[in-house]
Amino acid sequence: MPRPVRISVIGAGSGVFSLGLVKDICLTPNLNGSEISFMDIDADRLEFVQKLATRYAHELGADLRFEKTLDRAASLQDADFVINTAYPLGHHHARRMRELTERHGYYYGAVDLGDYYELELMMDVARDMERICPHAWLIQSGNPVFDGCTLMTRETNLKICGLCHGHYGYLEICRVLGLDPARVTWEAPGLNHCIWLTQFLYDGQDAYPLLDDWIETKGEEYWRTHVAERTHDIQMSRGAIHQYKMYGLMPIGDTPRTSTNTSSWWYHTDLATKKHWFGEPFGGPDTEIARPFYVTNLEKRLHQMQEVANDPKAKVTDIFGTTKTREQQVPIIDALTNNVEGRFQVNVPNRGRIEGLPDDVVVEGQAIIDATGIHPIKPTQLPRKIMLEQVYPRWLEMERNLEAYRSGDLSMLLWTALTNHQTRTYEQAVAVIQDLLAMPGHEELRAYFKGFDGTGARWNR
Amino acid sequence: MPRPVRISVIGAGSGVFSLGLVKDICLTPNLNGSEISFMDIDADRLEFVQKLATRYAHELGADLRFEKTLDRAASLQDADFVINTAYPLGHHHARRMRELTERHGYYYGAVDLGDYYELELMMDVARDMERICPHAWLIQSGNPVFDGCTLMTRETNLKICGLCHGHYGYLEICRVLGLDPARVTWEAPGLNHCIWLTQFLYDGQDAYPLLDDWIETKGEEYWRTHVAERTHDIQMSRGAIHQYKMYGLMPIGDTPRTSTNTSSWWYHTDLATKKHWFGEPFGGPDTEIARPFYVTNLEKRLHQMQEVANDPKAKVTDIFGTTKTREQQVPIIDALTNNVEGRFQVNVPNRGRIEGLPDDVVVEGQAIIDATGIHPIKPTQLPRKIMLEQVYPRWLEMERNLEAYRSGDLSMLLWTALTNHQTRTYEQAVAVIQDLLAMPGHEELRAYFKGFDGTGARWNR
Repeated sequence: MPRPVRISVIGAGSGVFSLGLVKDICLTPNLNGSEISFMDIDADRLEFVQKLATRYAHELGADLRFEKTLDRAASLQDADFVINTAYPLGHHHARRMRELTERHGYYYGAVDLGDYYELELMMDVARDMERICPHAWLIQSGNPVFDGCTLMTRETNLKICGLCHGHYGYLEICRVLGLDPARVTWEAPGLNHCIWLTQFLYDGQDAYPLLDDWIETKGEEYWRTHVAERTHDIQMSRGAIHQYKMYGLMPIGDTPRTSTNTSSWWYHTDLATKKHWFGEPFGGPDTEIARPFYVTNLEKRLHQMQEVANDPKAKVTDIFGTTKTREQQVPIIDALTNNVEGRFQVNVPNRGRIEGLPDDVVVEGQAIIDATGIHPIKPTQLPRKIMLEQVYPRWLEMERNLEAYRSGDLSMLLWTALTNHQTRTYEQAVAVIQDLLAMPGHEELRAYFKGFDGTGARWNR
Repeated sequence: MPRPVRISVIGAGSGVFSLGLVKDICLTPNLNGSEISFMDIDADRLEFVQKLATRYAHELGADLRFEKTLDRAASLQDADFVINTAYPLGHHHARRMRELTERHGYYYGAVDLGDYYELELMMDVARDMERICPHAWLIQSGNPVFDGCTLMTRETNLKICGLCHGHYGYLEICRVLGLDPARVTWEAPGLNHCIWLTQFLYDGQDAYPLLDDWIETKGEEYWRTHVAERTHDIQMSRGAIHQYKMYGLMPIGDTPRTSTNTSSWWYHTDLATKKHWFGEPFGGPDTEIARPFYVTNLEKRLHQMQEVANDPKAKVTDIFGTTKTREQQVPIIDALTNNVEGRFQVNVPNRGRIEGLPDDVVVEGQAIIDATGIHPIKPTQLPRKIMLEQVYPRWLEMERNLEAYRSGDLSMLLWTALTNHQTRTYEQAVAVIQDLLAMPGHEELRAYFKGFDGTGARWNR
C-alpha cells in the first residue's frame, strides 16, 4: 500500500528544477496523497511555482497538495524528505565575481570564494533539519555536492544523499557511438564531478574498443564539424577524449570540465583554447560566451513558466508535456518510501567503497535503493594513476575547502589563490583575495575570515 | 663488550661525506676493530678516500681496516651496515638538465627526470642486499630519501633508516635568537624535506614568542643586512618566516626551499625573487649563482683531500681536525651495535605516527635507538592546515613518482610537466619532456617509458 509523504523543497524558486520535480511526482501514482512544501526567499517565484504545480496536478487528476512558504522551519515541519537545491548568491553575483577576478588577470573565475555561502546555507538547512525533522532524508541537489555532503554527513546525524546529473554523460557516449543504451552496462565511480567509466560493456563485451575505433576513424571529423546545441555538451569533445588518453578511462559528465583543479588548467586558459578542447560554439559550459547563454535560457524558461502560470487558459500539461524527467529525486523517494527498488548514482559516505579514501568522505557511485535504505555497490577500483593524479588532489581540495570554512583562516584563502595555476605573482594573489573580500555581498565572509592576509611591506617586492 | 662491524659505503667517492664518516668512526672507540668497505664506480676517488682514511686512522691509532672496491657485491659481502650515499648522474648532468629546461622557459630545473635513476640505483642496492646481506641495516643517506625509503621498505624486507641533515636547522634558529641549544627542547616531524617545528621550548617554556619578538623587532634588519656564507643558510630567511606566517609553524631545514612542490612556486620564479625570499648573495641553494658555488666548493675540497692524500708529509688529523661531525650515521651504528642509546631524527615507515598518512609511507621524526632497534616516538600531530597544504600534497607527489617509476607510463611524466606552475602552454610541457628523454645519458629512461606522450596533430593547436 503506497504511503503519501511530505517533501520540503528548499530553493524551490529554481523554477526549472521545481517544474521537473512536480512532473515526476504527478507521474508517480505511488506518491498520490503527498504534500510538497515549496520554500524560497523569493515570494514571486514561489507564487508561480506553486500555481503551476497545482494546475499541473489538477490537469492530471493527481491528488497532491502544494504549499509555499518563505519560512524554512515551517517547510521542514513533518517533512519525510528535504530536497535542497538552493543557490545562495545567484548567477549574477557569480558573474560579478568573475568580472572582478578578470580585472586581476584571471580567466573566467579561476579564483572564487562562493563556496563559503553555499556551505553555510547547507549547514543552516542541515541544522534546522536536526532540530525539526531529524528522521527525514536530505536529498542534496545543489552544489558543491561533494564538499557539502561530506561536511553535513560529518557534522550531523542526518540521512543524506547527494545527487548530480553528470553520470548521464554515458548516454551521450552511447548516442555518438550509435549504441543502444539498453544493451550497455556501465559504471562510473569517483568523487562528484570526478567520475570515471570503469565499466563499459555492450552486450556484455568491452565497449572501449568501439570508442577507440571511433576516435581513430571519426573523432577528427566530429571535432571539426560538431556544433554543440547545449553549453554542457562536451562528453565527446577533444578535451574529454584527451583526458581518456592521459588517464586511461573516460571522464564522465562534469569531470572533463573541472577547471578549479590545478591538474587540468591547460584546457581552460582562454576562449580559443577552450573551443579547441570543448568545441564550438561555446568552448564548454564555463566561458564568457556559454554562461550568459545558459543563464539567459534559464531566465527565458522561467519567464515562460511565469506567463503560463498567469494565463488561466493555458493547458499546462500540453505545454510542459507528460514525460518523466531523468532526475533521480522522485524515483529515490519512491524507492525509500514504497520499496520500488532501483539502481541509482548517488553520493554517500565512502566506508571502504573506494579503497584508499577515508570512510567519511562522500563518494559517487551506484547503489541499490529500497525501503530499507541506500545500499552502495562496491565499484571496480579506479586505476592508481587516476587516484593519484585526479581523485586524491580533488579530495584534498575539498578538505582544504572544509578546513577554511571551519577555521575562518584567511591564509587558506590566500593559499588557494596563490596555488591557482593562473596566478603569476605573489602580489596578484594577495590583491585578488583582498578585492573579493571587499565585494558587496561578502560582508559575512569578510567578518569571518581572519589571520594572515599576506600583506605588509615585509612580504612585498 | 663493544662489537666490531663491517660497514659498506656505496658511493664512497663522495669524498667530503666519506671523510666525515671516517672521522666519526675513528673517534668512536666502541667501533675499534671494524672494517669499512668503500665502493664506488670512480677508481681514482676510491683510491684517495681509502688512502686518507687509512692515514687518519693510523695517526689516531684507531684499529680499523679500510677496503676499496669497484664491485658492489663484494662490498656488501658480510656487511652489518650499508650506507648508501650514491648520486648516480652527478652534478654536471643535473646542470645540463637545468640548461635544457631553461631553453624551454623553465627557471632553474623546475622540471626534472633525475629521480628515475636515483630510485633505480637505490633498488639495485636494496635487491643486492636482500641477496647478499639480508640482515644488514641500510642507512640511506642519498636523495630522494622520502621517495626512495618508502619504495625500498615496500619492496623489500630490509631494515632501512633514511637520514638527512635538514633538522639541524633548529640550531640556526637558536643561534640567531641567541638561545643555548642545550636548553632547547624541540621536535620537527613530517616528511623528509617537509618538517615543521611542532615543539620549541626554552627551559621548558614555549619559545615561539621569542621568535615572534625577533621577527617584529629584528627581522627586517636581519633580512636587509645578512649575507649568507653558505648557500643552504636560509633557516631564518624572509621566505622561511613567511612560511611560518602562512602555515603557523616554522619550516625546518630543507623545507622552505622545496621548489618542486606546486604549493610554493612563488618563492622560486627567478633570481631576484629568490634573493628577496632567501637572501643575499645566493638566493638560497637552488639558483644559478648558488649551485656552481656549491659544486665548485665541493670540488675544491675534493681536490684538497686528494692533495693531502698524495702528500706523505701531511698530517691528516691536523688538517681535517679531530672533532666529530654532526652526522648521525656512526652514532646510530654505535647505538644499534653497542646499545649506546640515543635520540635521533630518522626516516622510517609511519605506522600510525603521523595520523592520516598510510602506515607504509616513510615519515621523518625522532626515535630512540638502541641495540633492540629503532623506536620511533609519536610526535605532536601537525596542524590540519599543514597536513592539507603541505604534507598531503608532498605525499601525493612521492606516490606519483613511485607509480611512474613502477609503471613506466610516459603520460605520468607529461602530467608532471603539465602541472608544473611554470608551464605556460600544453605544447611547452610536451616539448620539454621529449627533449629531456632525448638527452644523452637518458637512454635507459627513454627505453623504459612508454605510452601517451601528448603529441599528435589532434592534440596541438
